[in-house]
Amino acid sequence: MKTLKLALLGFGSAGRAFARLLLEKEAEIEARYDTQVAVTAIVTGSHGTLTDSAGLDLPAALDTAEAGSRFPGSDTAMEVAERGDYDALLELTPLNIRTGQPAIDHIKTAFGRGKHVVTANKGPIAWAYADLRAEARRRGCLFFYETTVMDGTPIFNLAEYTLKMARVTEVSGILNTTTNYMLQEMAAGKPYEEILAAGRRLGFIEADPAMDIEGYDAAAKLTALLNVLMDAHMTPDRVDRTGIEHITPADIQAAAKRDCVIKLVCRGTVKDGQVQATVKPVEVPRGDLLATIDATSSVVSLTTDLMGKLSIVEHDPLIEQTAYGIFGDVLRVLDGVSRG
Amino acid sequence: MKTLKLALLGFGSAGRAFARLLLEKEAEIEARYDTQVAVTAIVTGSHGTLTDSAGLDLPAALDTAEAGSRFPGSDTAMEVAERGDYDALLELTPLNIRTGQPAIDHIKTAFGRGKHVVTANKGPIAWAYADLRAEARRRGCLFFYETTVMDGTPIFNLAEYTLKMARVTEVSGILNTTTNYMLQEMAAGKPYEEILAAGRRLGFIEADPAMDIEGYDAAAKLTALLNVLMDAHMTPDRVDRTGIEHITPADIQAAAKRDCVIKLVCRGTVKDGQVQATVKPVEVPRGDLLATIDATSSVVSLTTDLMGKLSIVEHDPLIEQTAYGIFGDVLRVLDGVSRG
Repeated sequence: MKTLKLALLGFGSAGRAFARLLLEKEAEIEARYDTQVAVTAIVTGSHGTLTDSAGLDLPAALDTAEAGSRFPGSDTAMEVAERGDYDALLELTPLNIRTGQPAIDHIKTAFGRGKHVVTANKGPIAWAYADLRAEARRRGCLFFYETTVMDGTPIFNLAEYTLKMARVTEVSGILNTTTNYMLQEMAAGKPYEEILAAGRRLGFIEADPAMDIEGYDAAAKLTALLNVLMDAHMTPDRVDRTGIEHITPADIQAAAKRDCVIKLVCRGTVKDGQVQATVKPVEVPRGDLLATIDATSSVVSLTTDLMGKLSIVEHDPLIEQTAYGIFGDVLRVLDGVSRG
Repeated sequence: MKTLKLALLGFGSAGRAFARLLLEKEAEIEARYDTQVAVTAIVTGSHGTLTDSAGLDLPAALDTAEAGSRFPGSDTAMEVAERGDYDALLELTPLNIRTGQPAIDHIKTAFGRGKHVVTANKGPIAWAYADLRAEARRRGCLFFYETTVMDGTPIFNLAEYTLKMARVTEVSGILNTTTNYMLQEMAAGKPYEEILAAGRRLGFIEADPAMDIEGYDAAAKLTALLNVLMDAHMTPDRVDRTGIEHITPADIQAAAKRDCVIKLVCRGTVKDGQVQATVKPVEVPRGDLLATIDATSSVVSLTTDLMGKLSIVEHDPLIEQTAYGIFGDVLRVLDGVSRG
């Protein structure tokens, strides 16, 4: 039996859910791919690093992490990327939405060593996709990033595997959960501070939600879609972006009188080589698909030359759906490796 | 350059749209697959047959068909399946929703000769999927059928290529355009006979719409989904089926008072090895995704063990989207053949 060695840069809730899924599916993977998947490195943000070239004890590592205890090692993510013993790097570090770093450098380092990469971090796809794609091709490395938009919901894979030779001419959708939740709660008449408190308690809203509320997270996801699906060479700072920070309950009530709801809508096209990308609050008629996308659900619509317009909706995802995105990309690495 | 020879059983509007797309993409296919796709046989229902082992003149064949003229040959579909010179059979004959025949026999004949098959005819998938799948595997033949549900919208390919190792536990959706259009027009207050006349004029409604109105077409599509995605060994006659023939304008108005619309909803699960499959009119709340599926649009929702619930919507398809479904499956044959 062959072995595929994984280095996990980041071991937050998504990384741990991925590890649990990997353990659950261990026997099925071995039967299907004649390959054992071994985790040889786990790097945390502030709880140390665990490495073992022979494959570390994943159940024990999960116990340690969930108890809030530390791993004994001190190698940084970059040190593991540079010197770790792995076949595929899993880039799961926290997003730096302003630069995509240091995740971009982790990925470049892995490609420089001829290693495959799976990223759940959208920064590199939003800031450096074309470069990274080119470098992966030059080095013969696999590079997958399904999780960067809508968790494990197939968007990039949908376009690549199921819409062959069709060209995407427009993307649109609702991509940010926090603002979608907030707008819905505002429409239900709840006070702003109460929404923030409840959203933080439920895990929908981060301690500092500015990146969500100001539309920057949505802009980064839109940029990732444009870069991958439409070869747009875009960066998030070039998106025409308006957040929901100035939307008032009165605006929402006025929209309701017109039988509309307000949603933070992303839209991108390429016309005559010019990218047009906007993120802004839009009044959507209640009979429109976008209006039915509830709190933590999301949607991407693709307009294509050959297959018309399609939409894919993710309903009420949990962290297991993020884990599945990473897992599915690791299966694609296994497919690619076994095919040679 | 290699050649892939196609035999087209059926040359109606979808077959002709496929032929136009094939011509449009000829150079791109040759560049990508180093393969020339040659149509070596076209069989029509009542306008003769055209065959040429060297590859027939497709633009001329299109002109002949669109002028309503006849092809010179008289071979039947079965004779071409049995003796034609082709690598892949395209089963595009009219659906027999009660038996799936003679399309099932055409496909079996092709497999018996070691030929690949693409079917846009859902009869074989609804009536004989497990047998055909097994026969294709025994003979090492490729077998694709994306077009049988929702045109070229990826449903079967979505599950196969983008939801690896996830198991589908429930399918649901709105799958029949005719009834969806009729219910919407009834809700707008139009008289039944006027709706039928307009629908026939626009091409949404067949001369005899009983198969649609009584839910049989939807049941066949639901059966195809259950057979492929959930290994259900189901047939359309075993679906618990209620059509829209007894829905009155008063029912629709009563639903509207409850802020609901009536939709013909398909739903299927497998519980403890028992398939539960229903097609019936359902009152759907206006805020639900299903309520936003307009006249000729459709939707499939998949509930899975690992990726939660996803929905895919096809918006306002034209005949070109049916053609794309066939085209995409032919590209998958090219992929499979080139991979050996």
